Amino acid sequence: LEKNEIDAFREEFLHMHTYDQAQFFEELDEPSRFALYEMLSPEEMADIFENVEIREEDYQEILSEMHPNFAADMLSEMSADDAVDVLNELDKEQVASYLTIMDEEAADEIKELLHYEEYTAGSIMTTEFVAIRENQTVHSAMHILRREAPEAETIYYVFVIDEQKHLAGVISLRDLIIADEDTMISEVMNERVVSVSVAEDQEEVARIMRDYNFLALPVVDFQQHLLGIITVDDVMDVLDEEASDDYSKLAGISDVDDTIDHNPLVAAKKRLPWLIILLFLGMMTASLIGRFEDTLNQVAILAVFIPLIGGMAGNTGTQALAVAVRGLATGEIEEESKIKLLIREAATGMITGASCGLLVVLIVYIWQGDLILGALVGVSVFSTLIVATLAGAFIPLLMHRFKIDPAVASGPFITTINDLISILIYFGLATTFMSYLK
Amino acid sequence: LEKNEIDAFREEFLHMHTYDQAQFFEELDEPSRFALYEMLSPEEMADIFENVEIREEDYQEILSEMHPNFAADMLSEMSADDAVDVLNELDKEQVASYLTIMDEEAADEIKELLHYEEYTAGSIMTTEFVAIRENQTVHSAMHILRREAPEAETIYYVFVIDEQKHLAGVISLRDLIIADEDTMISEVMNERVVSVSVAEDQEEVARIMRDYNFLALPVVDFQQHLLGIITVDDVMDVLDEEASDDYSKLAGISDVDDTIDHNPLVAAKKRLPWLIILLFLGMMTASLIGRFEDTLNQVAILAVFIPLIGGMAGNTGTQALAVAVRGLATGEIEEESKIKLLIREAATGMITGASCGLLVVLIVYIWQGDLILGALVGVSVFSTLIVATLAGAFIPLLMHRFKIDPAVASGPFITTINDLISILIYFGLATTFMSYLK
Repeated sequence: LEKNEIDAFREEFLHMHTYDQAQFFEELDEPSRFALYEMLSPEEMADIFENVEIREEDYQEILSEMHPNFAADMLSEMSADDAVDVLNELDKEQVASYLTIMDEEAADEIKELLHYEEYTAGSIMTTEFVAIRENQTVHSAMHILRREAPEAETIYYVFVIDEQKHLAGVISLRDLIIADEDTMISEVMNERVVSVSVAEDQEEVARIMRDYNFLALPVVDFQQHLLGIITVDDVMDVLDEEASDDYSKLAGISDVDDTIDHNPLVAAKKRLPWLIILLFLGMMTASLIGRFEDTLNQVAILAVFIPLIGGMAGNTGTQALAVAVRGLATGEIEEESKIKLLIREAATGMITGASCGLLVVLIVYIWQGDLILGALVGVSVFSTLIVATLAGAFIPLLMHRFKIDPAVASGPFITTINDLISILIYFGLATTFMSYLK
Repeated sequence: LEKNEIDAFREEFLHMHTYDQAQFFEELDEPSRFALYEMLSPEEMADIFENVEIREEDYQEILSEMHPNFAADMLSEMSADDAVDVLNELDKEQVASYLTIMDEEAADEIKELLHYEEYTAGSIMTTEFVAIRENQTVHSAMHILRREAPEAETIYYVFVIDEQKHLAGVISLRDLIIADEDTMISEVMNERVVSVSVAEDQEEVARIMRDYNFLALPVVDFQQHLLGIITVDDVMDVLDEEASDDYSKLAGISDVDDTIDHNPLVAAKKRLPWLIILLFLGMMTASLIGRFEDTLNQVAILAVFIPLIGGMAGNTGTQALAVAVRGLATGEIEEESKIKLLIREAATGMITGASCGLLVVLIVYIWQGDLILGALVGVSVFSTLIVATLAGAFIPLLMHRFKIDPAVASGPFITTINDLISILIYFGLATTFMSYLK
């Protein structure tokens, strides 16, 4: 490209919002990316990279394309928390080599953040925040704010620390600009500041920020020393991931957010695990029905209602599962309310079971003119719905007790377990009362 | 209560964060709520009410408990957008009566917002924002900001308008406080401001704010007049609702966020609609199997594999459905990429179908020692998985084309449709090749 073309491109490109720049970058092929690295400074590239959303495995490739010094400079210029997100996707050696050639101050910040475990408050916090002392005046606080504004992740909430760097309070920029310049910070700050521990789960952090409508939340260690802050934009991503995760699991797929550009092999790989587990569970159901072959041979019409009963069991189980998983995720269901939930679900199962059961008796009687068969199917639906609803609620609660993510008990798993239960009830009843069936 | 007890309670209560106050309020019974109304001013109650999250049908009751003047004063003191959310849950006459006795200025703001349709940008925006002129200096802008700070929803993004009140730019408080006091706003503002139309869907608004990490977004009419702003806290609620909505639909339940305190009748009411639809669809499946009664009477062993084939069809359909619904929700699947998605899904179905089909042939052959039966079940699984995967992707795309929310095609619906399809394929094949089965 000619010099003036580069200038024209830079002029146009750098006027775009960084999110749009990132979208543009994601669409580029390798040669175009190389051209872009030539045209932009590491600092400009850092702004883009903070907004890029690519597959985790692609970060390694993209960074290797850049000159190591360019990559290291870019990482230094990025927000420390975003740089850490990128570095977490690379090999250990690669991380070490970037940290060596990187700007020392930035490297130190990043090393500190790399310590924290994934999915904790520490892993999503940033150390680029503004802290002021409680014995400063508003005037001097504003002076610090103006100085730190270009670097800090947010200046709209300013956290106040005491001599020992303990978190002592918070003041919003809104309150700062309307306060008298000579007032002491300790007089205008809010001492009742909500903070989270550095080891807190990131989903809990997200929930607090959403419920309290915070724009920033301070992170402290066990001695209440201020370590960093979490801003609302990081938390939106967490809420999104969490929701998409629960959704994927309910559908029985490892990750529902696959792009249409992915080839079918990738898509199949995400879906096959559940399909194969399901296949084996289905074989168990099949062998269970096989045990009732005598019953089936004598009353073949019984087979007709297998999908109906299984389907209803599966669905009511999924409904109960979804309610339990959401309740556990939002923290509404706690240890002491688990029994209460199970009683509620049993009662719910009885109501839906009685309604659907009666309807089935009626339909089968009208359709087949056989009240005994109707009663058999109806009673099976009734009992199945109670047991299946309870199972749908009980299994996630059990997993939660054993510290397993309850969302792992996905829809297809519950569905198939309930298929088995429903067959057992249906054929058990049918075999017992076979002499009454024609 | 004694005078000094009231003071002690007020002291303690008003020191709590408004979210905690709201949580406390939600736990109260009717007499305690009456006591609280006595002790608090309408203004203090307004802060609480902005954070209260109760069932939509309960707002009517709670407001009727208050003295009409108290309720009207409280509504005047609330953020206009939050007040509108409450008023939207009341009877028309009740709304009119509150608006009559309310503070006139607040009533006018609310009337304006009540015009906008639910689920649009207009319905979630607030009119309490700070707008400045482009021909002002930074100094005078800061003066306005200080004056408006106590009332405005946010002062961290300030929107700039021209003489005709057209949106002309945006400047953050961060940039304002570091700018020289005598600079003109037009020199420091960002002219490339992203805005949304007042009629824009609220989910699209939420997506823009999440992707661009905005704290506030201006809302304009079709002539680019600035009408209001949307802040990040309103948008977090939208994202949450949206995710919970999709999740509920996938589980086949009208609303998954029911609290454990709800009685079983309420829970059953939310779940029965799908269970009854499913019951009728299940009856269709049953009558379909009934048509193959001859086949079944001769080869009863066929019944054994009904749940296996139906279960796999249902699950693969739900997987494809979930991917399509998310793709449509995030805007990744557009009109032109629909065909691409269907081709991808067909190929995915072939891969998963071939893998599972071969596995089934093997298992059935080892278990039953019958290669023909194994081949029949295996081929059925293979064909079923292709058709069911396609159906799972096609149905939401079709709904989207006809402007129906694709998430309505919930999990149980797809599962049951695919049950039907699988039975048709399985028994069709079995009847055709019956002479080869023993």
